[in-house]
Amino acid sequence: MDKLEVFKQKINHFLSQENFNNHPANLYEPIEYTLSLGGKRLRPILTLAACDLFGGNIDDALKPAIGIEIFHNFTLLHDDIMDDAPQRRGQETVYKKWNSNIAILSGDTMFAIAFKYISQANSKTLPEILSTFAQTAIEVCEGQQYDMDFESKDDVTIREYLKMIRLKTAVLLGASLKIGALVSNATTDESALIYDFGVNAGIAFQLKDDWLDAFGNEDKFGKSIGGDIIANKKTYLFLKCFEKASSTDRDRLIELFSDKQMNPEIKIDKVLGLYEKYHVKKESTREMEHFFNLALAAIKMTSASQNKKDILIGFAEWLYKRDH
Amino acid sequence: MDKLEVFKQKINHFLSQENFNNHPANLYEPIEYTLSLGGKRLRPILTLAACDLFGGNIDDALKPAIGIEIFHNFTLLHDDIMDDAPQRRGQETVYKKWNSNIAILSGDTMFAIAFKYISQANSKTLPEILSTFAQTAIEVCEGQQYDMDFESKDDVTIREYLKMIRLKTAVLLGASLKIGALVSNATTDESALIYDFGVNAGIAFQLKDDWLDAFGNEDKFGKSIGGDIIANKKTYLFLKCFEKASSTDRDRLIELFSDKQMNPEIKIDKVLGLYEKYHVKKESTREMEHFFNLALAAIKMTSASQNKKDILIGFAEWLYKRDH
Repeated sequence: MDKLEVFKQKINHFLSQENFNNHPANLYEPIEYTLSLGGKRLRPILTLAACDLFGGNIDDALKPAIGIEIFHNFTLLHDDIMDDAPQRRGQETVYKKWNSNIAILSGDTMFAIAFKYISQANSKTLPEILSTFAQTAIEVCEGQQYDMDFESKDDVTIREYLKMIRLKTAVLLGASLKIGALVSNATTDESALIYDFGVNAGIAFQLKDDWLDAFGNEDKFGKSIGGDIIANKKTYLFLKCFEKASSTDRDRLIELFSDKQMNPEIKIDKVLGLYEKYHVKKESTREMEHFFNLALAAIKMTSASQNKKDILIGFAEWLYKRDH
Repeated sequence: MDKLEVFKQKINHFLSQENFNNHPANLYEPIEYTLSLGGKRLRPILTLAACDLFGGNIDDALKPAIGIEIFHNFTLLHDDIMDDAPQRRGQETVYKKWNSNIAILSGDTMFAIAFKYISQANSKTLPEILSTFAQTAIEVCEGQQYDMDFESKDDVTIREYLKMIRLKTAVLLGASLKIGALVSNATTDESALIYDFGVNAGIAFQLKDDWLDAFGNEDKFGKSIGGDIIANKKTYLFLKCFEKASSTDRDRLIELFSDKQMNPEIKIDKVLGLYEKYHVKKESTREMEHFFNLALAAIKMTSASQNKKDILIGFAEWLYKRDH
C-alpha cells in the first residue's frame, strides 16, 4: 500500500474514533452525517505528506489535518445552502435532509471544532499555523463570494476567474501543505515553497475539473458531461471561448448561456462546437500545464529528499492527469 | 471617566481603525455595517477588565478582546437569519438588508476574523486561550440549537432552560473574562474562578432580561413590555409559573401561549395576572440572586486586590440591577 493510502486510512480511522454523537442531536447528527459521507480526504493527506516531506512526525500533524478536513466539510455544507444543492457525494445535503437553520448552525459548529483541532497542533510554530489557517479561511469565504457574484456579472475576465478559483479552492490546498510543513518545523522559505506548490497545483486541479465537465469521459467522471454548460456556469472554458470568439460567436455563446429551455443535448453540442472552433481544449490544457509547471518548480526548490518529493509530485500528477 | 468606560473607548477606537472595507464588497460591507452598529461591548470590556484584575497589561488583551466581540457579532448575525429577525439595534439586520446567502457567508468570515484576532494573543498561554475560545464557540452553538429546539418542545424544564441560557449567553461572558485572565498569566485556579464569576453573572443577566420583558419599565427598557409573551417565548417566567400553577391554570397558560390571534394587551394582562398569582416575580428575583451570589462568591476567592474586584462586582451589579 502506498504511503498516501496509509495517511488516508490514518485520517479515516481518527475520524471514526471521534465521537461527534453529542447533544443536542439536531446539531450533531448533521455533523456526523457529513463527516461519514467520505470523500478523497485530499487536504489532510497533504498535511501529513508535507509534514513527512520535511522530516516531521506525522502524528504531530494529525490533529491539524483533521481540523482542515472538518473545515473543508463545513464550507461544503454552507455552500450547499447558498447554491441550493440537493445532493453531495450522492446523498442528500444537510440543508435538504434537515433544514437551512440546522445546516447553518451545524456548519458553524464544525468551523469551531475545526479550530479546536488546529489549535492542538503540537508545534512551537502554533501562532504561524493559526495565522495561516485563519487567513486561508477568510480567503475561502472571499472566493465563494466572488463565485456567487460572478453569476450575475457579465464581464468576468479570465484573470478574475483565476483569482476566484485560487481563493475558493487552491489556497486551502496550499495551506494544508504549509501547515504540515510548519508542524515539522520547516523553515519559512520551505513552508512558502510548499504553499506555492499546493496553490498552483490547486488551480490546475480546478481547471481540470472544468475541463472534465466538457471533455471528460462520462462513465469515469461520474457526473454527466456538460453539467456546467446546462447550468450556464461561466467556467474557464466559457471565458476563454468568449475571449477568442468573433463578435457573432460571442453573441451566440451569450445566447446559449442564457437559455434555460433548450434541449440539453443540443445545447451541449452547440457549445462544444464553439469550444472546438476556438481551440478551447488546447488553450485550457496549456493553462493547466502552466500552473502545474509552477507547482513543480516550487517543490523542486525545497531541500526535501527526491523520493519524498516524488510522492507529492506523483499525487499532483494524478490529480492533474486524472480522467474522472 | 471610570476605568470600564476607558476600556470601551479603547475597543471602539481599535475597531474604528481596523479596515474591514475590503473586496468583495458583498462580503465586507455587511461586516463593516454590523460592527458599526455599536452595542455595549460588554464582552471585550470584560476581557480587558479581567486582564487588569490580575495585573496584566491590557494592551496584550486587546486583540483577543476584539476577536471575542467580532465572534459575538457573528453569532447575532447568524441568529438573526435563523430567527427571521428584521431588526437589530434599531437597524435592519444583514439578512434583511442584503440576503440570507450574504448573511451566512459574511458571518462565516467574521468567525474566521475572530479567530485571527484571538490567535494573536500575546501570551505563553495561547494554547489554553484557544481551547477556551473554541470550546466556548461550540457551546454557544449548542445553546442556540437548544433554544430553537425548545420552540417546538412542550416539556422544557427549568433545569433545561437554565442550561440553555448558560450555553447560549453565559459561557461567552465567562470565557471573555477567563481569556483576559489567561493573557495576564493568572493561575489555572484564578482563571477558573473568574470564569465562574462570569458564567453565574451571565445567567443572572439573562434572567434579568426575561424579568425586564415582563416587569420592566417600558420607557427605560426601550423594547415593548411583554414582547416575549406576545412571541409565546417560554422564558424562565413562563416555566416557573407553569411549574407552580394549578392544573386549570396550566391549561390556561398553555392556551394563552398558543394563541396568535388575541389582542396583545389583553394577552399580556392575562399572563401577568397568572405571574402575579404564582409569585413569579419574587421567584425569579430569588433565582437571579442565587446566581448573582454564586458569582460574588467566585470573584471573592480570587487573590486580586479588593479595589480591582470592586470594579467587576460593580459592573455585575449594574447588569443585574439595571431597570432597562
